[in-house]
Amino acid sequence: MATLQDIADRLGVSKGTVSKALNGSSDISEALQKTILETAVEMGYTKLRRRTDAEKKLCILIENIEYKEPHQLGYDIILGFRQMAEPAGYTVEVVPVTQDFQRNTPYDVFMLQNHYLGAFVLGFSLPSPWMTDFCTSRTLTVLYDNYISANPNIAHVGIDNTEGIELAVSHLHQLGHKRIGYLSGALGSYVMQVRHKAFFQALRREGLRADPSCAGSSYYITECIDRHLPRLLHSGTTAILCSHDMIANAAMIQCQQMGYRVPEDVSIIGFDDLPICAYTSPPMTTIRQDRIQIGKSGYYALESLRNHVLIGSLQLHAQLIIRNSTGTAPASAHPAASSSSPSGSVPSGSVSLEK
Amino acid sequence: MATLQDIADRLGVSKGTVSKALNGSSDISEALQKTILETAVEMGYTKLRRRTDAEKKLCILIENIEYKEPHQLGYDIILGFRQMAEPAGYTVEVVPVTQDFQRNTPYDVFMLQNHYLGAFVLGFSLPSPWMTDFCTSRTLTVLYDNYISANPNIAHVGIDNTEGIELAVSHLHQLGHKRIGYLSGALGSYVMQVRHKAFFQALRREGLRADPSCAGSSYYITECIDRHLPRLLHSGTTAILCSHDMIANAAMIQCQQMGYRVPEDVSIIGFDDLPICAYTSPPMTTIRQDRIQIGKSGYYALESLRNHVLIGSLQLHAQLIIRNSTGTAPASAHPAASSSSPSGSVPSGSVSLEK
Repeated sequence: MATLQDIADRLGVSKGTVSKALNGSSDISEALQKTILETAVEMGYTKLRRRTDAEKKLCILIENIEYKEPHQLGYDIILGFRQMAEPAGYTVEVVPVTQDFQRNTPYDVFMLQNHYLGAFVLGFSLPSPWMTDFCTSRTLTVLYDNYISANPNIAHVGIDNTEGIELAVSHLHQLGHKRIGYLSGALGSYVMQVRHKAFFQALRREGLRADPSCAGSSYYITECIDRHLPRLLHSGTTAILCSHDMIANAAMIQCQQMGYRVPEDVSIIGFDDLPICAYTSPPMTTIRQDRIQIGKSGYYALESLRNHVLIGSLQLHAQLIIRNSTGTAPASAHPAASSSSPSGSVPSGSVSLEK
Repeated sequence: MATLQDIADRLGVSKGTVSKALNGSSDISEALQKTILETAVEMGYTKLRRRTDAEKKLCILIENIEYKEPHQLGYDIILGFRQMAEPAGYTVEVVPVTQDFQRNTPYDVFMLQNHYLGAFVLGFSLPSPWMTDFCTSRTLTVLYDNYISANPNIAHVGIDNTEGIELAVSHLHQLGHKRIGYLSGALGSYVMQVRHKAFFQALRREGLRADPSCAGSSYYITECIDRHLPRLLHSGTTAILCSHDMIANAAMIQCQQMGYRVPEDVSIIGFDDLPICAYTSPPMTTIRQDRIQIGKSGYYALESLRNHVLIGSLQLHAQLIIRNSTGTAPASAHPAASSSSPSGSVPSGSVSLEK
């Protein structure tokens, strides 16, 4: 690893200046500090020498995932991570990072500047600027539901999404459903792509029709429902799998508003098993991600990397939680299927997550 | 879980008889003991109540992998597992199991009968009878380099084989190789299938020709070399990736006997990084599996399952170890390529692993 002197020599400044910059002293200009930090990172200087061992800091970096309330996806993941990290003597800081921020600060510089020994990264989409940084980063990093190949400093944790989708499709097929649809969030994230691909794989595995028209995706939930749900129902779809619970809940509400009973006319399955699923109407069949365990696994993977055990990927089993939104396929198609009756029209904007 | 009484009621025998059978008492006939054990398993009775907690037994089940000597693939995997399990108070028994044995004894019955709390399974091929048992087994089991979906009692550990193949193909492409071949063991094992598929994926990713004729596989190493190596060399292949080190070593020896220099005329890459690789002529570039860490991960996954953390899959990063069997692609093809000169003929049976 480069020394302070190496960095000083490269930049033609004193070793003291380098030291001050790396320790965030206020008597160095911001521009010079930035140059010194970036040079330090470029030269492979990945951790500041600690004056004491007292502070061992990890961070959880978040984008696109809600986490402040117990009913939100990120809450238990963070809790599980803390439950392991804090008793082991780490301080854990939760840091939301916008794409603008990522564009302006290289990842390794950010980590070095803030004295973080490693990061657990939640919810980044594929175009997030730091996703590129992760390919070559020298910082120990664990990604939830993202995957970077061939960088031994990066690990991935999550559930086996493919297994989850297979369990759901197989459950529906056993209930007699033959036309199964899929509603998905935008495909700009790794995990949405994995689930989408797994859906078609599972249809083929079960010997069911795997036509691209079975699936629809949109960034906004209401748009996804408006654009794709009536189309699926009218073509005789009797069961719909959703890429996450919030879409599934919106789909159940909309089906009921259109005169379809859940599960008698159409079965619906979510993904994640958020706390809401036990209280939807009807209670929702869904694929569980054990979020506490995901958080704990994130810590375990990070600690393993710190101990030179090069974990690349740690996946937990998915579990299908069967509640009341799935049932036997109807003997005959719903009257609205393949018709253009008024009940098939969708009142735009009528779906609300507040319901 | 079923009780002794439940089992006794089902079979119309006394509870004492069931107890004796489950504890291997010699005054019960072998046939009755077998019936009682199989019924116990069928009724979900997955562990014998221990009279004491003194003995906590795990087993390592082995098929197709050599493990008795330090230079063999299984040796360090077992060592890593023991290094974790024994300090934690477990006894570890290593049990080779033939396919005949598997056919005659259901897996859960075997585990119950021998009081094993869990198993680490090495080297099973896809047709191994217990691979079917694993799909529905209630015994906690970790598979090395095999994968069973949707059974929460089963986990998988290994390295990221796809990543390993990508690293190797990318390394060869960077050295200027455009025609890359692949020699593989028989495709009747999960891991051979994964590596084979990964090879063609990696070629496409690098924008290289991914023709099925680039690859060849056979069960026996000499047969693989005899059948596929001359064909690859004569069609202008300048680099050959192998599914494991022993094939790569045989390929290097055979290339040299055919008048090709390694790496000047042809580059060769192995897989596994067995201890032999540092001592082959020339020392072999290969993809490392850290076998001690695989063993330790096997224990970690099993212990996690015992603690109700449903690990499905734990993959370690693959590492490319660059030695001297790979080099820059030759400027022009070897004279023997695309010719039928005598140097291209293969003396049958001339390859020996003893060399």
